[in-house]
Amino acid sequence: MSAPSHVLPQQLSVADGCLQLGGIGLPRLAERVGRTPFYAYDRGQIAQRVGTLRRVLPAGIRLHYAMKANPMPAVVQMLTGLVDGIDVASGGELRVALDTGMAPERVSFAGPGKTDGELRSAVAAGILLHLESEQELDRVAVAGEHVGVVPRVAIRINPDFELKLAGMKMGGGPRPFGVDEERVPAMLRTVRQRELDFQGFHIFCGAQNLSAAAIAEAQTLSVQLAVRMAEHAPAPLRQVNIGAGFGVPYFPGDQPLPLEPVANALQQSLDLLRAAAPDAALALELGRYLVAEAGVYVCRVLERKISHGHTYLITDGGLHHHLAASGNFGQRVRRNFPVAIGNRMAGEAREVVSVVGPLCTPLDVLAEQMPLAPAVAGDLVVVFQSGAYGLSASPAGFLSHPPALEVLV
Amino acid sequence: MSAPSHVLPQQLSVADGCLQLGGIGLPRLAERVGRTPFYAYDRGQIAQRVGTLRRVLPAGIRLHYAMKANPMPAVVQMLTGLVDGIDVASGGELRVALDTGMAPERVSFAGPGKTDGELRSAVAAGILLHLESEQELDRVAVAGEHVGVVPRVAIRINPDFELKLAGMKMGGGPRPFGVDEERVPAMLRTVRQRELDFQGFHIFCGAQNLSAAAIAEAQTLSVQLAVRMAEHAPAPLRQVNIGAGFGVPYFPGDQPLPLEPVANALQQSLDLLRAAAPDAALALELGRYLVAEAGVYVCRVLERKISHGHTYLITDGGLHHHLAASGNFGQRVRRNFPVAIGNRMAGEAREVVSVVGPLCTPLDVLAEQMPLAPAVAGDLVVVFQSGAYGLSASPAGFLSHPPALEVLV
Repeated sequence: MSAPSHVLPQQLSVADGCLQLGGIGLPRLAERVGRTPFYAYDRGQIAQRVGTLRRVLPAGIRLHYAMKANPMPAVVQMLTGLVDGIDVASGGELRVALDTGMAPERVSFAGPGKTDGELRSAVAAGILLHLESEQELDRVAVAGEHVGVVPRVAIRINPDFELKLAGMKMGGGPRPFGVDEERVPAMLRTVRQRELDFQGFHIFCGAQNLSAAAIAEAQTLSVQLAVRMAEHAPAPLRQVNIGAGFGVPYFPGDQPLPLEPVANALQQSLDLLRAAAPDAALALELGRYLVAEAGVYVCRVLERKISHGHTYLITDGGLHHHLAASGNFGQRVRRNFPVAIGNRMAGEAREVVSVVGPLCTPLDVLAEQMPLAPAVAGDLVVVFQSGAYGLSASPAGFLSHPPALEVLV
Repeated sequence: MSAPSHVLPQQLSVADGCLQLGGIGLPRLAERVGRTPFYAYDRGQIAQRVGTLRRVLPAGIRLHYAMKANPMPAVVQMLTGLVDGIDVASGGELRVALDTGMAPERVSFAGPGKTDGELRSAVAAGILLHLESEQELDRVAVAGEHVGVVPRVAIRINPDFELKLAGMKMGGGPRPFGVDEERVPAMLRTVRQRELDFQGFHIFCGAQNLSAAAIAEAQTLSVQLAVRMAEHAPAPLRQVNIGAGFGVPYFPGDQPLPLEPVANALQQSLDLLRAAAPDAALALELGRYLVAEAGVYVCRVLERKISHGHTYLITDGGLHHHLAASGNFGQRVRRNFPVAIGNRMAGEAREVVSVVGPLCTPLDVLAEQMPLAPAVAGDLVVVFQSGAYGLSASPAGFLSHPPALEVLV
């Protein structure tokens, strides 16, 4: 039995031994970008991912982009033309979302610690606010009076159930996110009293899940919960956002999420919701799933170095640009992302090497003891599955190295 | 037997129930800074730490500041007046160090992945380059010819021993840092052939250590190694940099490093070095130890929130400013940094709460289930031991929230 291996992107394109991104060979793309390291996001792969979801998921499901996954303005702008809504997590993200021209009614804002300034911005913009607590409801009402606009609100519910097998659990038991479900009816009465523009519910219980059964179960429970809570609502439900939790395969042995079982369960949920709340749209909020597999991080080998028989490829890129690949962002056990030598994709020769960055810390590892094509100084190291929570989730200022560039190709 | 507790900074100053920083009460300092969150570094505490080292360590020991620990220009500038050298880890840090007016001869540059551009900058500046590999030696020689200046070099040795009990090991076995010690004699011959200006050795085998015995042993072995290698050197040793590895107490049960045993061993090492190499200075490179305990991170409580009986203080600060305190930077087991409510330092009342940030991720935790003074919205949360590897080691762009400010008071 062989060791578990990485699932590489399904649309991996290689020509003349070089990885192709957006139809451009990697060495030429590196010249076009002008320097390494850089992130490259493939617009064709992003569009194809949205297309697959449209084809497989039930008609009428709304697809939202959670731009926290990749806030590069060009990426957000491109997705604005493909999806039905943008979800933001800060005032800074809100500005980028509005700059795209997306209709404010299609922008929503969730986050457990919104400042009064952010609430006023959101109310003035006319976007949908996902209320995370009773105090936030009060603060939004005050913001509405201040701005002179009736706030559009949904309630984020902290469900009693959790998303099983999730890489990151965000429901079930005490959480800083949303309102415990038993307190939601009372909160809905307050929404009515404060005369806010009630739109619906947001229920999100976990991220980065590769189990279709677990996702289907959590989404079904979420819609059932929304339907139960709708009985207490001051107005008809207009939207139910059930997150998504769709994971991508990062590590050896991970398998892509099968969409069909999720789609089947969603159809039942959609039927249930339409029976109870005919005006309500059912929205999936997708971040990582739309962009992660469309992105690569590219850095250049500065030196090939041997220490006590162990080969290191020392690169100009590292954890300051790609913390997740170093294993220092939410992981407790370091595992390798899929990595390749992007200008040596032909041939079968492999040697076991570690790929490290320029930082003076043993944490600065992009690949540990991986079989890669034999590489020399000048070669281009590619880290796949890097389109989400890459650059923006990394400590760019660490050791004052130059920032990574980003291109959408 | 009670649970292990945090060691708080020894110079904790409180007046009228408020933490004092640089003689200023925290609420007033927050007004002066203009907004939260911010980092505040206390210049008195930094100076006192340097003073303690000068008093306890043998006369003649050189103290260097490894500015990667805290690259805020005002901090580096202040330390320039107190220490004997600045150690940089990138071209960006080099520019800041030179801007302080520190003599180039007192600036040194280590790092396993220096670019050709960085090497040329360093040679042109006339600083000391710590060579990390044979290839880097070749590249430095080329840079010297290009610039028309003889490069000043030391060799970083990857020692066969390790720093026992270190939070971060950087020697012993295969490493990307430095040159395996058995290859150093041959490399010294090349230094002579290439007619570089040889200055000495850099030997650094681990960081964040709280065991004086382990540090003393590693430093003794380091000096012995330098003396052995000096026999092969093309010129008299001028400097031996043995790192430091001095740790600070972050977590419950951690005790401050006792300096006396380290000082006693250093005296013996200094005697050994002087007997073998009368012109050689012995330098300690200190980063974290000089600044960590002098710094705090301050954020404001936005909401006090209850979920299923668990109390959360939701703040405007989080892992995007202080990744280490969230447990996501090099830690495999999350533990709390010392945390307090900085405007409620009087009184004995405590409640067990979790302090979280505004980010939509369960990773965004500054304190988990800690006993703190009962707090309400508007109160100021202080994370101690935050003067090193705080802001610069955090993903400032994550979710596009405003950056943290920094002040030196």
